Amino acid sequence: MSREPALTAEAGGRSYPVHLGDGLLAATGELVAEAKLAADAALVIHDANVANYAATVATSLERSGLRAPLLSVAPGEASKSLAEVERICRHAARNGVRRRDAVVAVGGGVIGDLAGFVAASYQRGVGLVHVPTTLLAMVDSAIGGKTGVDLPEGKNYVGAVYQPGAVLMDTATLASLPPRELSCGFAEVVKYGLLDGEELFSVVESWPELPGPADDLADLIRRCVAHKVGVVQADEMDLGVRATLNLGHTVGHGIEAAAGYARYHHGEAISLGLLAALRISERIAGLDPEWRERTRRILERHRLPVRLDSAVGTADIEDRMGRDKKADAVSLNMVVLPRPGEPQTNADPGREMVREAIEELRG
Amino acid sequence: MSREPALTAEAGGRSYPVHLGDGLLAATGELVAEAKLAADAALVIHDANVANYAATVATSLERSGLRAPLLSVAPGEASKSLAEVERICRHAARNGVRRRDAVVAVGGGVIGDLAGFVAASYQRGVGLVHVPTTLLAMVDSAIGGKTGVDLPEGKNYVGAVYQPGAVLMDTATLASLPPRELSCGFAEVVKYGLLDGEELFSVVESWPELPGPADDLADLIRRCVAHKVGVVQADEMDLGVRATLNLGHTVGHGIEAAAGYARYHHGEAISLGLLAALRISERIAGLDPEWRERTRRILERHRLPVRLDSAVGTADIEDRMGRDKKADAVSLNMVVLPRPGEPQTNADPGREMVREAIEELRG
Repeated sequence: MSREPALTAEAGGRSYPVHLGDGLLAATGELVAEAKLAADAALVIHDANVANYAATVATSLERSGLRAPLLSVAPGEASKSLAEVERICRHAARNGVRRRDAVVAVGGGVIGDLAGFVAASYQRGVGLVHVPTTLLAMVDSAIGGKTGVDLPEGKNYVGAVYQPGAVLMDTATLASLPPRELSCGFAEVVKYGLLDGEELFSVVESWPELPGPADDLADLIRRCVAHKVGVVQADEMDLGVRATLNLGHTVGHGIEAAAGYARYHHGEAISLGLLAALRISERIAGLDPEWRERTRRILERHRLPVRLDSAVGTADIEDRMGRDKKADAVSLNMVVLPRPGEPQTNADPGREMVREAIEELRG
Repeated sequence: MSREPALTAEAGGRSYPVHLGDGLLAATGELVAEAKLAADAALVIHDANVANYAATVATSLERSGLRAPLLSVAPGEASKSLAEVERICRHAARNGVRRRDAVVAVGGGVIGDLAGFVAASYQRGVGLVHVPTTLLAMVDSAIGGKTGVDLPEGKNYVGAVYQPGAVLMDTATLASLPPRELSCGFAEVVKYGLLDGEELFSVVESWPELPGPADDLADLIRRCVAHKVGVVQADEMDLGVRATLNLGHTVGHGIEAAAGYARYHHGEAISLGLLAALRISERIAGLDPEWRERTRRILERHRLPVRLDSAVGTADIEDRMGRDKKADAVSLNMVVLPRPGEPQTNADPGREMVREAIEELRG
């Protein structure tokens, strides 16, 4: 079997296929073998919650003649640690994973970030295949090469920019995703609608309910991925236009952190962060308020928060925003949107305006 | 002050200056500022044994307007661990080191490997300045971008290929180097003589005693660095010609490991490994035995071992050679030398011939 990828991503002078379809997990072995990504072994690192998908992947790899040792990782951000990197690398060494072999990451963003950094670092870099099983990971973290783990001092403080050799997205895995996680992924989809322009925004706006018709969903994911691929191709190292992908993330990260990474999941914080970014865009970039209202209705329809919990303090949010590792020492470097499809980076609305935008989220 | 670098290294499409001279430490700040390697802070990571040199470097950086927090690392291979990476990265975070700042590595190979991996990984990569203070680090580990730490399962099993923004070699630091460490560095110098050809070999052969005349030594280092720079430029990711730099290292690593990384320092094991590689080269590549004899005399004159300790068993050495992460599953991929200046990679002499070459080291 030979399959055309849904699209081809390019970054850092290399390209890799992004495969997208229903039931792709069982074809992992063929796709990895075709692309010559592993000489002898492929270490399957997976979220403990998706052991069934990992088993399908491993069986497929073995059918293609590769050894496929499995390693389960506890769900949740706490697994993004250097201690876990060490545990995985030692497991790889003891299982005879070598320089021309590969790591296959099966799970959501945590697994992709963690296993991606392992792949970048183990024996100074082995092959990497992302098999994202959440909507958030498909449209966001599996593309673009950002990998890393956390320190107590900050998220993603240790990592690498390391592009995969292939990405496999099996939309069938989304059927078993908890509704809250589907909604979280959709917050990033809404972001792509705003970044890409009115056409994609309209598709997102007319989305009936999650997950939606399978073929349509695959097409929506493909369009989001295509947007990100284009941005990463232009700016792999995040020195310019790639920063546009942070729309909603400056305030969003502040809210997520101030709430102790507990009250809000990432996508929920981004939902609120997008509304704050649009409010600021109205004030300093002339965005028509209709876009914020339409965005708010989309987010609400898919059960994403549009009002900030009073238990999360504005001063705390502001304080945590300043600690984002991308923030400059003196300015916030926010992304604003004069109109859909035309994001601008390096906007500095000033602390006062940010505070007001956060306060307005309290409705 | 503006200085011309001794040479310019290129790898992965980027280039960096290699400065070489007497008393360069005190110019670190100017050179780092000129090259715009750090926006605000440069974290000086140093071997505890060279705290005085690190202080000179930090003072120089501060005079150029940079914050220069210091962090001391215990001497020895045991510091090449992921736990130490975490300790350093947390120190960097607490000291406000950011994405556009830099790490300055002051020390020998251990510090360069460790701090280099920190620079590659902290916030997905910050600036890196190597300030090697040993002969071994100057001619070998500070050039070429290989960084990493060890696992219990193997040396350098976790790392990155990450090029520095600049390398500063102050030959004055060699004056305080213990004689045994100078000799160890010279083993690699002998290797470059063999790899580069008769002209450099003759310079090495006529070396009176270590360290030797300062200007001549700087020139010798420059020639070794130039050889390595050329090889790395052609093959940064170690997929081809870069393997020639492993001359003497297949058996050498085996000896080093079989002796528990205690009896022989790295350069001493390489001394023995070079002799074994030349013996094998005679048998399968037609090398004139005179070269081994001349090499043996050079090594002996500089107090490097030319006879293998009977306490280190041949079977142990063979066993540890097979575990080198570069070794193929079935062959040894050795470097052999039909004549000086013309190394060949991927030679497989077979286990029997390797065993004989090791036995011959017992004199």
